[in-house]
Amino acid sequence: MIAEKMKKLVNNSSAIRAMFEEGKKMAEKYGAENVYDFSLGNPNVPAPAEVKEAILKELEEEDSLMLHGYMSNSGYEDVREAVAQSLNQRFGTAFDQKNIVMTVGAAGGLNVILKTLLNPGDEVMVIAPYFGEYNSYVANYDGKVVVVSPNTDTFQPNLTELEEKITEKTKAVIVNSPNNPTGVVYSEEIIQKMADILEKKQSRFQSDIYLISDEPYRELAYDGVEVPYLTKYYRNTIVAYSFSKSLSLPGERIGYLVIPDEAADGSEIQAAANVATRILGYVNAPSLMQKAVARCLDARADVPYYNRNRETLYNGLRELGFSCIKPQGAFYLFVKSPVEDEKIFCEAAKKYHILLVPGSSFACPGYVRIAYCVSYETIVNAMPGFQKLAEEF
Amino acid sequence: MIAEKMKKLVNNSSAIRAMFEEGKKMAEKYGAENVYDFSLGNPNVPAPAEVKEAILKELEEEDSLMLHGYMSNSGYEDVREAVAQSLNQRFGTAFDQKNIVMTVGAAGGLNVILKTLLNPGDEVMVIAPYFGEYNSYVANYDGKVVVVSPNTDTFQPNLTELEEKITEKTKAVIVNSPNNPTGVVYSEEIIQKMADILEKKQSRFQSDIYLISDEPYRELAYDGVEVPYLTKYYRNTIVAYSFSKSLSLPGERIGYLVIPDEAADGSEIQAAANVATRILGYVNAPSLMQKAVARCLDARADVPYYNRNRETLYNGLRELGFSCIKPQGAFYLFVKSPVEDEKIFCEAAKKYHILLVPGSSFACPGYVRIAYCVSYETIVNAMPGFQKLAEEF
Repeated sequence: MIAEKMKKLVNNSSAIRAMFEEGKKMAEKYGAENVYDFSLGNPNVPAPAEVKEAILKELEEEDSLMLHGYMSNSGYEDVREAVAQSLNQRFGTAFDQKNIVMTVGAAGGLNVILKTLLNPGDEVMVIAPYFGEYNSYVANYDGKVVVVSPNTDTFQPNLTELEEKITEKTKAVIVNSPNNPTGVVYSEEIIQKMADILEKKQSRFQSDIYLISDEPYRELAYDGVEVPYLTKYYRNTIVAYSFSKSLSLPGERIGYLVIPDEAADGSEIQAAANVATRILGYVNAPSLMQKAVARCLDARADVPYYNRNRETLYNGLRELGFSCIKPQGAFYLFVKSPVEDEKIFCEAAKKYHILLVPGSSFACPGYVRIAYCVSYETIVNAMPGFQKLAEEF
Repeated sequence: MIAEKMKKLVNNSSAIRAMFEEGKKMAEKYGAENVYDFSLGNPNVPAPAEVKEAILKELEEEDSLMLHGYMSNSGYEDVREAVAQSLNQRFGTAFDQKNIVMTVGAAGGLNVILKTLLNPGDEVMVIAPYFGEYNSYVANYDGKVVVVSPNTDTFQPNLTELEEKITEKTKAVIVNSPNNPTGVVYSEEIIQKMADILEKKQSRFQSDIYLISDEPYRELAYDGVEVPYLTKYYRNTIVAYSFSKSLSLPGERIGYLVIPDEAADGSEIQAAANVATRILGYVNAPSLMQKAVARCLDARADVPYYNRNRETLYNGLRELGFSCIKPQGAFYLFVKSPVEDEKIFCEAAKKYHILLVPGSSFACPGYVRIAYCVSYETIVNAMPGFQKLAEEF
């Protein structure tokens, strides 16, 4: 009796669940320390000390009714202003509180903005490889996903195909940089070119095309690489941010949307996002966590820990002969499968108790994702297994 | 450029916003203590001490990765088990963790279950007067709201009309007891009769009709009145609960769904609700708050405070000649307007700095809602204004 739309989603979900269960069984059979689970994007470094301090301070100083009560559906004004000023300082933008909507993580933010923008049949472009949940988020509002196929040389967006596939029905383009699953950071040059293409298409179709920047991994960038702030390159940009990775708070569901005044119908979108937050049942982002993150806007989880994992895993796999772009951000490595059907490779890896995610889940078959948000020891101890895999293929 | 569906919602929202702004202006002009704002259902008694203690204990004892990390989309197993056992103890039910889905408040829970159940065009019955947000929640999934008109003698459901309006397309009936806006508790007799009607209609149409019990006000019941636990009366019952009022935590967005095994396709619904939680962008209920409420399942906000407000307001208004059912629960009084068009009455009340919500907002014109989740002094000090209003009409 469940909804037709849900049936397929439940089946897909069962497949992921089965993989998870298999990992659990392996851990029981061989011991958790002998299973190398690289399948989950769940941070393994704790929240920085500032988070606990901030929560304690709020509990101590703030009135219960204020701390746990309702506020505007878009969030506390002082929290939104603090977020805006922090962005202005870091990126030279000129936001204030009305440009910020506090959200239930980036996933909540993406749903709010898609609910706000999409009419049934509107097209939303995504750039492979991409986070598979976008399909569901767009489908929630009866939008149509249009996939730009992957550029496997650099994993920068394939701009030629992007340009070709934009139509008068294109309402939004979602970009995710640093990228899940490749770890690639889209370069300033690419962003500028993409902006030019979108401007040109807007003129041609007399439409507004929104660039939605999904950036939960913004703070996880290595080697001093700059992650361009997209509102500065393209007027119709909307940012969906999350503190899940920067502060290791994925379970707390806290993030925000940035809706610039300069975006077409900016103030209308701001008002509608406020309403969408309410009617989608979020009502508002969790109140104590809003106050807590506002005190931690400059704090970061242990990024050097991830960086050591990145170097060790990347160098180790390269030495074994695997082929992979060196990731500049996030905590994923996207490795070319030695066989065309990467699912065969994932199955083979299980023999060595190594769990990987097939690239097909990100619309990019022939590759596998390795999430290195694991302990350093896991990486070191998995290396002999990777060596055997390399020998096998 | 915002979605067509959103445009009307934004306009409606602007009207509410205008009322809110008017209240704020009044407060500036006359002083907040001289404005009697009975328009908001925002708890005014603080969270009980147990909540702060629970948060502190979790911060002290629990590992950061566990406390702030991802868990199953349905919530922590131990939290869900604690909720199930607490229900079993209180209501003689036989739930376990698989029957519980932790949600982003009751609003989140209602969206999850409606996403799970509704195909486009499915009918969802609501019983006037009712919380207007149900319209949006049902519309989110392209369902159709069917309204049972109010029984203004008792404000118990009009069962004759309910029976008449059930069709083969009826997928769910939403009930809300203690009720917003009337404060009425649906009696056991009424619930039993409603269950019989639903059973009969299920047989006739060879369908499953789910009874969705939205019960954020369950713990706010006075004079020892029993609020029947609906899963015991009707197999296809799903409960949406919130800690917003029982623990005065509305901003924290924490609640749960109960999906009994006995419900038709119960285990399928449980699995789909887990997926709906994820794809709607909630991902999971806020993690620290899940852990905190699990430690506070027997704690309550200061219900006697609301009770004193109830008695004072009810008796005061009756003495002035106003007509009103004595509420047995929640923190609302639903008063008959002395003039047919209650909006005229609401306008007149503003002269005395009294803010009320027209019954039209709850599909019950001719009445006004008075939210008495305010300070006791507000009620006492508003009485002269109510007296002048009584004299005027």
